[in-house]
Amino acid sequence: MKNIYIIGVGLIGGSLAIDIKKNNPEVVIHGISRKEATLDEALSLKLIDKKATLDDIENADLVIIAIPVDATVKLLPTILDKVSDSGLVVDAGSTKVDICKIVENHPKRRNFLAMHPIAGTEYSGPSAAISGLFEGKTNIVCEVEKTTFKLQEKALKLFTDIGMRIRYMNPEAHDKHIAYMSHLSHISSFMLGKTVIEKEKNERDIFDMAGSGFASTVRLAKSSPAMWTPIFKQNKANVIETLEEYITNLTHFKELMKQDDFDAIFNEMENTNHIKDILKGIS
Amino acid sequence: MKNIYIIGVGLIGGSLAIDIKKNNPEVVIHGISRKEATLDEALSLKLIDKKATLDDIENADLVIIAIPVDATVKLLPTILDKVSDSGLVVDAGSTKVDICKIVENHPKRRNFLAMHPIAGTEYSGPSAAISGLFEGKTNIVCEVEKTTFKLQEKALKLFTDIGMRIRYMNPEAHDKHIAYMSHLSHISSFMLGKTVIEKEKNERDIFDMAGSGFASTVRLAKSSPAMWTPIFKQNKANVIETLEEYITNLTHFKELMKQDDFDAIFNEMENTNHIKDILKGIS
Repeated sequence: MKNIYIIGVGLIGGSLAIDIKKNNPEVVIHGISRKEATLDEALSLKLIDKKATLDDIENADLVIIAIPVDATVKLLPTILDKVSDSGLVVDAGSTKVDICKIVENHPKRRNFLAMHPIAGTEYSGPSAAISGLFEGKTNIVCEVEKTTFKLQEKALKLFTDIGMRIRYMNPEAHDKHIAYMSHLSHISSFMLGKTVIEKEKNERDIFDMAGSGFASTVRLAKSSPAMWTPIFKQNKANVIETLEEYITNLTHFKELMKQDDFDAIFNEMENTNHIKDILKGIS
Repeated sequence: MKNIYIIGVGLIGGSLAIDIKKNNPEVVIHGISRKEATLDEALSLKLIDKKATLDDIENADLVIIAIPVDATVKLLPTILDKVSDSGLVVDAGSTKVDICKIVENHPKRRNFLAMHPIAGTEYSGPSAAISGLFEGKTNIVCEVEKTTFKLQEKALKLFTDIGMRIRYMNPEAHDKHIAYMSHLSHISSFMLGKTVIEKEKNERDIFDMAGSGFASTVRLAKSSPAMWTPIFKQNKANVIETLEEYITNLTHFKELMKQDDFDAIFNEMENTNHIKDILKGIS
């Protein structure tokens, strides 16, 4: 593996670049972006070795797509067209059904591996890229059997080398479960932020009352709308289902409060407390 | 200030003990708890110097009450009865209306200072006590004018010395705003945990998909039901109001998704993004 092309050199693409380069100093990292300024920033931050364009992809051993999922769906077939027979294209999108579907009949389907490295922060852009982002995190790989074995093997080694554990899942299961494990958290956090900002807009010093609990719960409301809008759009049905269940649970909690049933309120919380054990090890 | 009695030597009481002792090595910290085992633990962790009982309070220069708010309301009048004329009682409760009300006509009202040091973690008990918990955090003081000036002065110095900034507020305003800034976050987090656990209860390995975003948003669902149930009970009206607004915002978001109005979804998120600037400095 000599030439790696990263399309989208933001939080995910940039962080992958840092760690892959660290493990494989001989690799040349080429950056591709719609915006010249982003590439210049990535270059000056030493995330990438060279700037490139989509036309250079024929020289790629590996192409990593780390852009919003709507752009991935649009661009992926063209990128697969361009990649050489020995090149591999992977994506890092937070949805998998639409992305897998768009290339299901592509003549080079076996040169594509669908993955979702589950890692991130609430920040975005090249300056958000950090080393170690993927250490101990999970990389979900979809439809692994549709990718040339030798190519999967090479790619998965890169990802296990940066500390990721690999889990295999079909795209439908991925999108269904990730709606609960990630997408719902983002909406819950955005709407918490909205509720509080609306209420306190005329009393900004009230935010002096914000403790670390509020900060933690509302952290994801800092996330990029440009990244998250297409995720919600592609995973619409699953996300609506999670939202409905979440709203039902909140409404039930509210009703218990209205009925002064604080024994039940206690139980609601106690029954959820064992999230402690479930989440052990995730920080 | 020589003898400080701390009632409740858990996360808050224990952390206060550590930092106050560090700044005032001459002070003797006496611990009081319903449970002998808790006191033994606090003693072995060196949070307190001595075990004590409520009857010893007549010897106190300062009494800090750091127990669930329902227990505070029950116990506070008796504690005030026992404290000497030169002693001060403060509480650290997350609600302030009921606590201030219960002593409004108490003959020793001027020996009480109502406060809410806004700090914490999702853990509880003596082993959760840590140094530095209050550094840079806000301590809300209510009805400051009802406390003897000399006594307020002494107490507030202890709290500014451990790094807290003091803000003054009436109990009604405190309870109203803290419902948004803290109580709602806890319910949002508990119900997020519940929604996900219910859905995934038969597929525990799905929690491998949990990233740091989910962990952060659901962190408060690890909090103690014994502490939080009485808070929600005492602040019922305000909490129900915040919940109604939160549910309305979530329902609106869901409706926008159903209508495929993803421009509006983008705007919902972008309008909340400036929580970044508001929260700058809170971690």
